[in-house]
Amino acid sequence: MLPETVVSYLNEHSEQFVAELQRLCRQPSVSAQNLGLGECAELVKTMMEQVGLHTQLFELEAGPPVVYGELQGRSDKTLIFYDHYDVQPPEPLELWQSDPWAAEIRDGVLYARGASDNKSNIVSRLKAMEAWLQTAGQLPCSVKWVIEGEEETGSRHLGQFIRAERARLAGDGCIWEFGGLDDDDIPAIVLGLKGMLYVELTARGPAADLHSARAAIVENPAWRLVQALSTIRDAAGHVTIEGWYERVRDFTPAELAALEAVPLPEEELKRELGIAHFLNDMHGPELKKALAGGPTANIAGIWGGYRGEGHKTVLPASAKAKLDFRLVPDQEPEELAERLRSHLQRHGFGDLELQIQAASPAARTPLEAEIVRMAQETARQVFAKEPIVQVSSAGSGPMALFSDLLKLPTVAIGCNHSGSQTHSPNENQRLDVFLAGTQWMAAMLERFGQAG
Amino acid sequence: MLPETVVSYLNEHSEQFVAELQRLCRQPSVSAQNLGLGECAELVKTMMEQVGLHTQLFELEAGPPVVYGELQGRSDKTLIFYDHYDVQPPEPLELWQSDPWAAEIRDGVLYARGASDNKSNIVSRLKAMEAWLQTAGQLPCSVKWVIEGEEETGSRHLGQFIRAERARLAGDGCIWEFGGLDDDDIPAIVLGLKGMLYVELTARGPAADLHSARAAIVENPAWRLVQALSTIRDAAGHVTIEGWYERVRDFTPAELAALEAVPLPEEELKRELGIAHFLNDMHGPELKKALAGGPTANIAGIWGGYRGEGHKTVLPASAKAKLDFRLVPDQEPEELAERLRSHLQRHGFGDLELQIQAASPAARTPLEAEIVRMAQETARQVFAKEPIVQVSSAGSGPMALFSDLLKLPTVAIGCNHSGSQTHSPNENQRLDVFLAGTQWMAAMLERFGQAG
Repeated sequence: MLPETVVSYLNEHSEQFVAELQRLCRQPSVSAQNLGLGECAELVKTMMEQVGLHTQLFELEAGPPVVYGELQGRSDKTLIFYDHYDVQPPEPLELWQSDPWAAEIRDGVLYARGASDNKSNIVSRLKAMEAWLQTAGQLPCSVKWVIEGEEETGSRHLGQFIRAERARLAGDGCIWEFGGLDDDDIPAIVLGLKGMLYVELTARGPAADLHSARAAIVENPAWRLVQALSTIRDAAGHVTIEGWYERVRDFTPAELAALEAVPLPEEELKRELGIAHFLNDMHGPELKKALAGGPTANIAGIWGGYRGEGHKTVLPASAKAKLDFRLVPDQEPEELAERLRSHLQRHGFGDLELQIQAASPAARTPLEAEIVRMAQETARQVFAKEPIVQVSSAGSGPMALFSDLLKLPTVAIGCNHSGSQTHSPNENQRLDVFLAGTQWMAAMLERFGQAG
Repeated sequence: MLPETVVSYLNEHSEQFVAELQRLCRQPSVSAQNLGLGECAELVKTMMEQVGLHTQLFELEAGPPVVYGELQGRSDKTLIFYDHYDVQPPEPLELWQSDPWAAEIRDGVLYARGASDNKSNIVSRLKAMEAWLQTAGQLPCSVKWVIEGEEETGSRHLGQFIRAERARLAGDGCIWEFGGLDDDDIPAIVLGLKGMLYVELTARGPAADLHSARAAIVENPAWRLVQALSTIRDAAGHVTIEGWYERVRDFTPAELAALEAVPLPEEELKRELGIAHFLNDMHGPELKKALAGGPTANIAGIWGGYRGEGHKTVLPASAKAKLDFRLVPDQEPEELAERLRSHLQRHGFGDLELQIQAASPAARTPLEAEIVRMAQETARQVFAKEPIVQVSSAGSGPMALFSDLLKLPTVAIGCNHSGSQTHSPNENQRLDVFLAGTQWMAAMLERFGQAG
């Protein structure tokens, strides 16, 4: 249990914590637009130092710097935190009810780009540390903190940093950048993320767009692209590239039980998504398994030729598609990129240009890891509710750098809430959840310090 | 042979003819942008009246008016002309060397949007009639002239007009809006056009774009579209819709001989198009037959999801494709639209929205028609060269309304030249060809009046 002094400190300083969150949200930091990143990195570094952490900015080969902070604690256990100070672009601006950089508070909710993803987690973690340092003079465990500045554009240089600083980043567990309460305000502990292979396929035809009368004698690259794509995935959603599923790790019985235990309100979800059926008419456990552990092949974009009003008859010079393949443990993105390349060649599409834009493996911390139990125990303490455990998110991120490369059991927990509109206009952070999340982090620091 | 008086008139007034062409080219008339159409219709009507034709503007249910002109001639034979006063949009403007509406003349070439397609033909035909009227006081044959204002946007209301005015439009033959000299300045007589079925296919998925993590459980409409398209055409270019080729009319032995007689410089054409091989590696007679008589299925446009830089992971709410199918005699566009619809249903794509944007049949005048012989004879007179006869263009247009509905043997002949950049920046008209075309038309009027 958290000492009364820590709880009091957190309660008594809640207004200052919110002010600090506003301070961070008012600093724009849009990685996609290279806006305010250096300033935001400096601000995060300063905020860390004001709490008492030792900090360093790591300049990378390209992209914004990594902010690094660390502090020795009471026990010999080291907890790693991963966050990012960059945010999504705020556009379209006209859909915001208040300026995305104003961090306006209305009815106990703070509205700002980045409020939820992921500046509230940065500040709540920082303030949990401050509470320990101000009341006990020391952290219950040692802390190392990596805050990158290009998560929203694909964490392109994070791997370089992690590999270069591997020795420095030794630790015993990791807390991920997102996490919090589910739709019913039940605390959720997420143990995994899918990997990602993102490619752009280009089919090229004649030197310039032609009058489509030429279609009688000139191949249309849009047809080539369509034909190539149609060999990649079947109507049921399965990837039809040879060996694609070869390395897929099965769920353990415990993971299956955990999946089963988390409710999935199917009808509600269909209504929300505006669909009549789920893919391949899945339901029940099948649906949950697909979300947590199903590889996907998605056409994120496809284009070629004329897209305006009415009819224009053109044979386009090229056609392109962007595909994102979500991967699961233990699929290997580089191997699969190669399988995709061979597949295209084997099917007569070796002339299509294949550009790999991202390749990162999936991550999944075992249910049995001690940090999972710690997250459960502390969630019960703070929220007085039984938390749910999600074997994996359906989303992706660079978690494997921590869970696999650095061998850190990793959980995603924090102060996010459902309805926070991350990546959308009017992104927001409920302040009650922000403050509860601060307590959760303080409790995790304590519990981690007691690890066996 | 043309009387000396007519030839002299044509020669002596060439400067005025060019000035008249400039006058018409300086009047913008962009149907796609609804720009200057009423003004251009009035100008064409005025120009007809100044020559001596009786004119009338026909307002249609929608779209710009049809300009109609007629004049009784010496013989009881009636020659119908079809032209259009609208032009393509001039954009991109920055690629023009002079203003597209300035009708600037450089080195014997007039540069303007519409100069070649099809204002030069309008003026050369008009001036051929003027020459006869000014020298002989009468046309050698009767003339009826239909000049529409929305050819460049698909002649959407021309069918209504032709059907309503069918009795008025009785005649013995028709001269089409384009035609002239081929790459080697050999006069070419074109006897047919392909038909067109233009459709837009829409696949719809979730109510809004989703994060592509949802691809694990939500079907992506871009995949549905790709799968549907892949059933429509094979890699060799054949349409794989049941019964698509059922009504295709074979070339006659005479047509095959005519195809064979027209040279097709394959290597040059490949270089020009920037391709290494023709579709399905065709060459020789096969290639010529495909151009003149091969049905096509072309993806004129396809789009859905994200097309910007870098990687964005979205599952789009919808995906669309525009397809143009070129048709040949005797394929029936309405029947084929229905076959396409059934095909999609049979293959499980009945939920895709199919919007028919254009449906017009092909046209092909028999080689044996008397008007073909007349065009050949007059071409020899004017150009002192043996003309080539093209069984069909690879392009499309509303020719069947004249050749089939009005039962008029139809030839496309005129004053166009290769390199005229129609539909492109710096569209131009060689003035020597313009004046020669005027002679060709004067000769055709005479020859048609002598028809048996």
